[in-house]
Amino acid sequence: MTEFSELPTLGILGGMGPGAAVDFQQRLLDASPATKDQEHIPTIAWNHGGIPDRQLALKNLGESPLTAMLHGLKILERSGVSKIAIPCNTAHFWHSDLQQHTPIEILNMVEITVQQILKNYQSGDKVGILATKGALSTQLYQLELSKHDIPFVINSDQEIEQEFMPAVYAVKRNESAQAGIVFQELSQRLIDKGAGSIILACTEIPIGLHAIQSPILDVSFDTTQILADACVNWFYRNT
Amino acid sequence: MTEFSELPTLGILGGMGPGAAVDFQQRLLDASPATKDQEHIPTIAWNHGGIPDRQLALKNLGESPLTAMLHGLKILERSGVSKIAIPCNTAHFWHSDLQQHTPIEILNMVEITVQQILKNYQSGDKVGILATKGALSTQLYQLELSKHDIPFVINSDQEIEQEFMPAVYAVKRNESAQAGIVFQELSQRLIDKGAGSIILACTEIPIGLHAIQSPILDVSFDTTQILADACVNWFYRNT
Repeated sequence: MTEFSELPTLGILGGMGPGAAVDFQQRLLDASPATKDQEHIPTIAWNHGGIPDRQLALKNLGESPLTAMLHGLKILERSGVSKIAIPCNTAHFWHSDLQQHTPIEILNMVEITVQQILKNYQSGDKVGILATKGALSTQLYQLELSKHDIPFVINSDQEIEQEFMPAVYAVKRNESAQAGIVFQELSQRLIDKGAGSIILACTEIPIGLHAIQSPILDVSFDTTQILADACVNWFYRNT
Repeated sequence: MTEFSELPTLGILGGMGPGAAVDFQQRLLDASPATKDQEHIPTIAWNHGGIPDRQLALKNLGESPLTAMLHGLKILERSGVSKIAIPCNTAHFWHSDLQQHTPIEILNMVEITVQQILKNYQSGDKVGILATKGALSTQLYQLELSKHDIPFVINSDQEIEQEFMPAVYAVKRNESAQAGIVFQELSQRLIDKGAGSIILACTEIPIGLHAIQSPILDVSFDTTQILADACVNWFYRNT
């Protein structure tokens, strides 16, 4: 067996939100083939909810979260992590800024998710993007899907501002089931617009959908799960 | 509101097991009065399952986990945490060794649990201790309960070795429901021996009991929850 100190460690830049970072850690455990403590992926999770609100920053209504994220990144780097995962889609707007500040690879959840979609993709299939106002406004997923000629549908501005965003903030105050109902309804509207599958492009969404055991999960690309699976594949390929 | 960088951070020395450390983080979230990301307790969780097996070490059959735990402790210390929690009862055998190596207070789960028992204690009530072979052999809870004249009952050596310990290792390989049935049965035997309540003195136990929604949880002192509540009380008293 590999020595304790030689095992690669996964750094988790969390806090966006704190619940999503814990959900991500649970997915890592569940996806892992470990049969005892010593076989699990060593992780260090910096889970600081105090990072300034990403949505406000992207509307120019609040402080940039980048300084706080860099603070967490440096803690992870000093702790000796070999790879970093950020279980927050909107935060990936700052992915390249963060990557410029560290030699450690930061997995790109957006790219990994679109690669996953491409695995069984039939030309012409429309994909629904369920995402925050901030993530949609920065075109994170739209640009990545367009690179691969995948057509997409999104909710209207009004649906996002008046229905989706309040549900995201509801998850953050532990009202996951109520939020799940909203996420399900908005996903259904994307299906009504022609989407054959839905990217859960905010890590609060699966927390809500799982709370109501929504059937939408069966036609979804769950970004939390896809990122966890990528970490599991990385770790067990390297040990 | 307190500035991002001024918020006290809780360090979590995890890995014993990795699932218990994630369960503990979920309890922190659930017990927190936060209504948005920025109000949650900032945490850094070092969750390294590679720490040598505590049970083998306490039987002199394996390497001491202390060196590995000190490695994690130093990572947490360098990361600037203000308080440390260890969501593992057996690991508290090394609590004073760890505390000697850091000026940061390491919460003592054993003492905090017994203080919680004392809050509604009726003189003469017997408490059952459900714990690992290692925790029982080091008398962690027996000594602390005796200090306060609380009588206790424990399972037989045979029950612990042949039934309890295999169930603990089952949780570590994600077989929580099967383990929960065993934990419930062994708790019932402590009740049959006169215990009015059960200390779940291993952080794998509540994972198993929750997986089967066991009624034992209603008569239990759940050490994971008690430690999480102590952290929540500490944090919100200081912010």
